[in-house]
Amino acid sequence: MLILMEPAATRDQVGEVLALLEAAGIRSQVNETPGALSIVAPNASKALKPDRIEPMAGVRRVVPITSPYKLASADAAAGRTVVDVRGVRIGGPELALVGGPCGVESREQLFTVARYVAEAGVKLLRAGAFKPRTSPYAFQGLGLEGLRLLEEARAEFDLGIVTEATEVETFDDVERSADMVQIGARNMQNFALLRRAGRCEKPVLLKRGPSATLEEWLYAAEYVLGEGNRNLVLCERGIRTWSDHARNTLDVSVVPAAKVLTHLPVMVDPSHATGRRDLVIPCGLAGVAAGADGLLVETHCNPEKALSDGPQALLPSDFIRLVERAQAVHRALQAPSLTGLWM
Amino acid sequence: MLILMEPAATRDQVGEVLALLEAAGIRSQVNETPGALSIVAPNASKALKPDRIEPMAGVRRVVPITSPYKLASADAAAGRTVVDVRGVRIGGPELALVGGPCGVESREQLFTVARYVAEAGVKLLRAGAFKPRTSPYAFQGLGLEGLRLLEEARAEFDLGIVTEATEVETFDDVERSADMVQIGARNMQNFALLRRAGRCEKPVLLKRGPSATLEEWLYAAEYVLGEGNRNLVLCERGIRTWSDHARNTLDVSVVPAAKVLTHLPVMVDPSHATGRRDLVIPCGLAGVAAGADGLLVETHCNPEKALSDGPQALLPSDFIRLVERAQAVHRALQAPSLTGLWM
Amino acid sequence: MLILMEPAATRDQVGEVLALLEAAGIRSQVNETPGALSIVAPNASKALKPDRIEPMAGVRRVVPITSPYKLASADAAAGRTVVDVRGVRIGGPELALVGGPCGVESREQLFTVARYVAEAGVKLLRAGAFKPRTSPYAFQGLGLEGLRLLEEARAEFDLGIVTEATEVETFDDVERSADMVQIGARNMQNFALLRRAGRCEKPVLLKRGPSATLEEWLYAAEYVLGEGNRNLVLCERGIRTWSDHARNTLDVSVVPAAKVLTHLPVMVDPSHATGRRDLVIPCGLAGVAAGADGLLVETHCNPEKALSDGPQALLPSDFIRLVERAQAVHRALQAPSLTGLWM
Amino acid sequence: MLILMEPAATRDQVGEVLALLEAAGIRSQVNETPGALSIVAPNASKALKPDRIEPMAGVRRVVPITSPYKLASADAAAGRTVVDVRGVRIGGPELALVGGPCGVESREQLFTVARYVAEAGVKLLRAGAFKPRTSPYAFQGLGLEGLRLLEEARAEFDLGIVTEATEVETFDDVERSADMVQIGARNMQNFALLRRAGRCEKPVLLKRGPSATLEEWLYAAEYVLGEGNRNLVLCERGIRTWSDHARNTLDVSVVPAAKVLTHLPVMVDPSHATGRRDLVIPCGLAGVAAGADGLLVETHCNPEKALSDGPQALLPSDFIRLVERAQAVHRALQAPSLTGLWM
Repeated sequence: MLILMEPAATRDQVGEVLALLEAAGIRSQVNETPGALSIVAPNASKALKPDRIEPMAGVRRVVPITSPYKLASADAAAGRTVVDVRGVRIGGPELALVGGPCGVESREQLFTVARYVAEAGVKLLRAGAFKPRTSPYAFQGLGLEGLRLLEEARAEFDLGIVTEATEVETFDDVERSADMVQIGARNMQNFALLRRAGRCEKPVLLKRGPSATLEEWLYAAEYVLGEGNRNLVLCERGIRTWSDHARNTLDVSVVPAAKVLTHLPVMVDPSHATGRRDLVIPCGLAGVAAGADGLLVETHCNPEKALSDGPQALLPSDFIRLVERAQAVHRALQAPSLTGLWM
Repeated sequence: MLILMEPAATRDQVGEVLALLEAAGIRSQVNETPGALSIVAPNASKALKPDRIEPMAGVRRVVPITSPYKLASADAAAGRTVVDVRGVRIGGPELALVGGPCGVESREQLFTVARYVAEAGVKLLRAGAFKPRTSPYAFQGLGLEGLRLLEEARAEFDLGIVTEATEVETFDDVERSADMVQIGARNMQNFALLRRAGRCEKPVLLKRGPSATLEEWLYAAEYVLGEGNRNLVLCERGIRTWSDHARNTLDVSVVPAAKVLTHLPVMVDPSHATGRRDLVIPCGLAGVAAGADGLLVETHCNPEKALSDGPQALLPSDFIRLVERAQAVHRALQAPSLTGLWM
Repeated sequence: MLILMEPAATRDQVGEVLALLEAAGIRSQVNETPGALSIVAPNASKALKPDRIEPMAGVRRVVPITSPYKLASADAAAGRTVVDVRGVRIGGPELALVGGPCGVESREQLFTVARYVAEAGVKLLRAGAFKPRTSPYAFQGLGLEGLRLLEEARAEFDLGIVTEATEVETFDDVERSADMVQIGARNMQNFALLRRAGRCEKPVLLKRGPSATLEEWLYAAEYVLGEGNRNLVLCERGIRTWSDHARNTLDVSVVPAAKVLTHLPVMVDPSHATGRRDLVIPCGLAGVAAGADGLLVETHCNPEKALSDGPQALLPSDFIRLVERAQAVHRALQAPSLTGLWM
Repeated sequence: MLILMEPAATRDQVGEVLALLEAAGIRSQVNETPGALSIVAPNASKALKPDRIEPMAGVRRVVPITSPYKLASADAAAGRTVVDVRGVRIGGPELALVGGPCGVESREQLFTVARYVAEAGVKLLRAGAFKPRTSPYAFQGLGLEGLRLLEEARAEFDLGIVTEATEVETFDDVERSADMVQIGARNMQNFALLRRAGRCEKPVLLKRGPSATLEEWLYAAEYVLGEGNRNLVLCERGIRTWSDHARNTLDVSVVPAAKVLTHLPVMVDPSHATGRRDLVIPCGLAGVAAGADGLLVETHCNPEKALSDGPQALLPSDFIRLVERAQAVHRALQAPSLTGLWM
């Protein structure tokens, strides 16, 4: 159930509701969005009837959460969630952009990319220190050394760091160095890792699995949210289909479809979604036009020599083109002259 | 091979090249795009060496067509094809919009929709008189009566008519009434129908099959082009995947991927691609942002009572919202302030 | 509705029921399976209540057909349909085998294959005279000349002929020459062709489309059955998925799933399902083990030189191995020592 | 590279080869199959030329391993691998059968199922103590208590235990209790877990991921083999496609396709592959006919009350029917009367 509190509810009133839930053995979470405070208690209705809570002081209304994923459900929040990553607000009116190479390869490579990413006005840098790779013989990332280089890049270029955690064992290290921890597509149903991400102090970016339905993705989000981490962003990165002109099929309709079901922000990664440099810009723009809250894009100063995913990395000049055009599309759709709302 | 003629080549010089090809038993087609004239002769190089043609008067250069679809290949034209449908130029700088109900149901229904389509500034009306339906017990369209109503709507609202031909037997009737003949997704590899469309006097809209690769789609186009009809537009309408939040998966990356391989215009049908009214607008915008030359959209004055595809038809007010926003995205991406080109 | 007649019902009694239906404007069909006679009247219950028919002489019972495909539904027949193709009974206790090359290429090629097919004890020969091809530049079949060669092969080797009709225009010719007319996968929703097949005097083999659901396949069958042709056999030939070790994915579970829903026989084509010679035998055996009523297999005396589908054609010796093993699996599953039935 | 030793090679000779490889910084593994001893050294050819090794005493031949997965490759073994699980040899001439409930729910449930599994002549019991579940609110298994019950069932019914490890954290416990450790489909690319499984003392069953290609599956196997555990069995369990009559699509052709590429045994799980009780038997038989080395089947004494996957669990009587028929098909295909070999 979702317990909506009065705007004027006091901390004590909130505390009394929480105490009642706790006494009934019910886990709950407090939710704050601008101007609204609510308490979510998944699967609580069996143990406690709404009419036991509704008369309490400070409570405005108790509403059931009908979807099977409780905390991720759009019903479970009074508004849309905005996730703050080192000052970049994902899910708000601004488009959030993240750029960088697939993996950290060297200080020189990372700094070269970080410099033009920052110069393009982008505030978040992505790069993997731990790389999950299909083959055990492929480059697996620089590990701790990669994390150190990312920290240096943050200091040097004033960029927030988005990097992937691939296993529980090394999660502490990633959490310490990152401003946002990515859970990769192949780990979308690695439940131990999801639970660990749910106990992470940093925001989490949850990529959709290559064959995950929207419902399974939201259940995966529920694993993270259930451990207490509310700073969660979803990211579509292409799905596996038989369509063979691109590495994956960007499922662009999942962006608006997700936004109907969840209060979480949704980003798009056009690089993994296509695997082809010449499709990244149009597909990134498609994501923005479909309502994505931001883009996660691979770019490399020297894609031919990249140790991983070179063919999908944008050249510096193309990265700038994408940033300009993505902002142009985003602005065009927020023009006050447009009639009404479409979502 | 593609024979590029000099801009100043005379009719006689063109005629001599054609005569030589004919004498060698080679089929060929003349191609005119603004400022450029060329002759395409698929699979000709075995019968006639380029150095037999290159020295001829008026010939600038002979280039091989390396892709397996010869006439559809981007190599086979000096520029991008623009298809004119009753004054609407598909493939040019303007965005081409087509709106209307799934099927013609009655004069009242058709005229109501046609009126607000025209009022929204859209110049092309779509509606099926012959409906291919999964079940033999479903509404199959009004047939010839539907075609007559479409002709009346054209006269009344000054709209070009886009309607589907489902079989060779009734193709003549459709060709006579339509301004553009649609070949539906399920008929993308109905080769007899494709050949008939290739002998059609009207432009043809070729939908992508629900499980067709880009290559198969271009081969299907080749069947049409091979019979002489050069006025062909491709239309992505969603593919069949396991992703279950929408009826089909809009494969938005096929738009730029097709434009790399072919000179033909590419449109997007966000209605069949999603099957859900609330996803049509964002997916239509995604198509435009990805570079589509136009949109084909279902709209109905009373979707709950539509005889087919009601759940995906836009309400009148939403149709207008889509038109406004699609134009806004299209304009934003053509702003001269944007750096360079991305495709 | 399905009207089950008494075993002792007379022709007159059947006639009276049919007359009543006709008077009410209801189309119907008479169904005879060994020892059972019934009348199927799809979508009749609105026009005529069962209690109007049940008291009639000779009528045992009236049962509703609840599935949306009426004539194809398992509810619509008192038993399983057996289709007789020149003495080979498809759907009965024997396994039905069909072998032959993809296309008729020459008398020598056809006769060489036909000879060893016949010597392997197989009674039905498959080969296409009209070939639907992805590319307009690929071998399209010998056409009428191919049909003549098939007729000669029938006379010479005492084999029934299974060959494809690709369009309404040439259907008469195919119908005249064939013992069974195949509708290919790409034409599964070519409704004009399905209707023509429904008016065909010969049995029809309906391949599943590469992206057709089971339900859509049964609706396609309904188009054929609805025109009066009850001699219909379904054939699974692999579906299009992202799994890339084979040309298609043999959806072997559709065999038992179809048999739950329909009374029609179901065959398997392991050649198109895999596209790889080394997978044809194991996949053919898988089909038999899953309950298929027969196999349709490509074999060629000289696969390297085949004009189409060479890589999937079995060599003569492998064809014999498949026949032996398919029979062995089929017999093993019919052993009386096995406990009970599983379907 | 693969270093094939002479049958008469001595331990010392093997030791010298290993010492040379070690000195060159090359990891290697010794491989023993009946009558053949070999050494696999993945990616060794850059560091050490074959002609440095071939002249050594006891070495018969050095052959390159051309596939990208080195240890899993069929090239990397002199014969097929046979994995022994508590006396059941998977990959040998006998069909290996594993039966049991989805999850351990209680001693009574587990013992009831174990009893009839054992009575059917099946020697291996499957049941999950740790259950990876899509929803965090679904039954997650009994954990350590489940492992204890499995140990009791082994003692009581003389059955080997196959059970899943879902995370590195609890792997030790599972390893201690199990006779074979299963890596589930969703963890097929959980590389930390794969590496841990590679250091496991017990044989490992590696399920194919729901959207994994054959190549990715073999790379996942390579992660396990690379840590030294050679007792690995692959298991196909259905893939995710748009085909909607079953929960997944059994990709039966992957069985023979895998056997071309790898020396590892391949099993089939028809329960997860279909999700429908009425399809489990025919699909299990299809797997056997296609050459699977065994079946992994869910069965439950009371499927309606199962805490997970009830709809796909076979009733006791059906489980026995499957065992009988699977053996019948397996025997039929090994009959000495059959001509030659097909694989």
